[in-house]
Amino acid sequence: MINKITTAIAHPNIALIKYWGDLDVDLHIPVNSSISMNLDGLFTRTTVTYSSEITRDDLFIDGQPASEIAQKRVEYFLDRFRKIYKISGYFQIESASNFPINAGIASSASAFAALSLAVTDACGLSLSEADLSRLARLGSGSACRSIPGGFVEWQAGYNHESSFAFLIASPSHWCLVDCIAIVDTEEKETSSRQGHELAQSSPLQQARIMNADQRLDECRFAIMSRDFDLLARVVELDSNMMHAVMMTSNPPLLYWKPATISIMKSVIEWRMAGIPVCYTVDAGANVHVLCEAENSGAILNQLKEIPGVLLVLEAGPGGAATLEIRN
Amino acid sequence: MINKITTAIAHPNIALIKYWGDLDVDLHIPVNSSISMNLDGLFTRTTVTYSSEITRDDLFIDGQPASEIAQKRVEYFLDRFRKIYKISGYFQIESASNFPINAGIASSASAFAALSLAVTDACGLSLSEADLSRLARLGSGSACRSIPGGFVEWQAGYNHESSFAFLIASPSHWCLVDCIAIVDTEEKETSSRQGHELAQSSPLQQARIMNADQRLDECRFAIMSRDFDLLARVVELDSNMMHAVMMTSNPPLLYWKPATISIMKSVIEWRMAGIPVCYTVDAGANVHVLCEAENSGAILNQLKEIPGVLLVLEAGPGGAATLEIRN
Repeated sequence: MINKITTAIAHPNIALIKYWGDLDVDLHIPVNSSISMNLDGLFTRTTVTYSSEITRDDLFIDGQPASEIAQKRVEYFLDRFRKIYKISGYFQIESASNFPINAGIASSASAFAALSLAVTDACGLSLSEADLSRLARLGSGSACRSIPGGFVEWQAGYNHESSFAFLIASPSHWCLVDCIAIVDTEEKETSSRQGHELAQSSPLQQARIMNADQRLDECRFAIMSRDFDLLARVVELDSNMMHAVMMTSNPPLLYWKPATISIMKSVIEWRMAGIPVCYTVDAGANVHVLCEAENSGAILNQLKEIPGVLLVLEAGPGGAATLEIRN
Repeated sequence: MINKITTAIAHPNIALIKYWGDLDVDLHIPVNSSISMNLDGLFTRTTVTYSSEITRDDLFIDGQPASEIAQKRVEYFLDRFRKIYKISGYFQIESASNFPINAGIASSASAFAALSLAVTDACGLSLSEADLSRLARLGSGSACRSIPGGFVEWQAGYNHESSFAFLIASPSHWCLVDCIAIVDTEEKETSSRQGHELAQSSPLQQARIMNADQRLDECRFAIMSRDFDLLARVVELDSNMMHAVMMTSNPPLLYWKPATISIMKSVIEWRMAGIPVCYTVDAGANVHVLCEAENSGAILNQLKEIPGVLLVLEAGPGGAATLEIRN
């Protein structure tokens, strides 16, 4: 009789070079490679029970049965997992995140990263980091970046085998801090998943893709050489390029709110005044304000003063997805 | 002895398909054709005195000697005018606009259109509309669109001869109303002229240009067939595409303010609720909200309720540049 309970923890990540648009919608093979930083302190904790007494997959989020959409999405993921690794049986999954979900912080990334690690361990599998990353990608594209730790690059690739993420610098390499200015905690009107499918309808998407390798190289170099000025330039450009594509897709997606603009403009002003700081905005209205640890206290306080900012979270570079309990 | 005083009036115009970036910076030959509507009720009134007693070009704006930048720009324009039309002598120019300048309403367009008409008349020249449009373009690109009346297309062309504007529909063709929500009356940090030069530094500009003919065709068709839904789609797309280029140029230009986003989002909501309305934003923070005359009263009132809106101007389709007084 099988009966194993495993808990894994994974951090969400903030994309410094963004993922927007798929080459293969079903496998989440992206049209361009991306770079991210895991967010320490923020996490999804997922417990998987694998038992012969369980007769269907059941998902609980924050102690409540999940919505039908979330339940179906996880079932679809688990079906693929079972098929790839020739597993039979079902799982009970309890997942909880310590940050607002559906608010531009990629909760699906940490959720599918933690689930991938927990479910493979529950089945007695010990996958390589690359294989875990591939598996997590099937649940949510950006989840593949929450498997390795620190600063991570997701090589776009062209099929399931070639598309996975790897560490480019450990968390201790650079004490960057992401001050996350939350201006909206409501569910997004258009989910990232739907948005990815719209990306190709923008007349600007192809130009964004064509320029992606250059931005990727600059971002990787900025991280490796801890060059904040270069990082600021390329991270803001990349964020603006993604939102440029969003707002010119058909139908257009305008994720920004008035406070989003207030924060972006404040960040630009602060940088012009000599403070190393930059912004990036995911598929939502919240603004991730990046700075070095020595300036994060002051920036955190200044962000709280901006009208429309509901709260500010703070996160340094986070580690890899890890198992919490084995039994 | 020469002594002639002439006054001309010209309207600013709102671009429905935008001009952003030059093929020839000096001649203001644009990289793409554009379409605009003249704005009735708003105007620049310019009086030119051409007299053998005048020994230098002198520009007065709203009764005050102009700034050195404005004075030099007009002198440069007049030098080219004198060269092309073999005119000698100097001019005294008094110009006044009845709307806030440098706030995203193209004051340079109405100013150079009125100046072109007034100065040619003062010299006893009677130019064709196309030639007046070419001349006005030398002062400010979009000024060429303020020479003809109503709905106007500026054929980009490739040299001075081929780049001019013409009427595509008279003012009475369609009772569109531009409700201009002013959120900022301060001078722009980056002028349109500087911005045009930055356009090519955006990795998205080429894609914007490549798609311009399609947008132009759709906009022209929407106007000719009075198809508001099509107009809304293409006008908002084109505005977003220009701002996409602006915010991804090097350095980036972020003209929007928090209230700009508030208005854009409100307009989208109103349209989803069934009201034919759309937005377009020039190189500034103010939002031009287009609707049909029957809805303009209600929209005007709703715009005034949005926080950050300082005042709302209202303009239907305006006529051609005209002479006011001959003597």
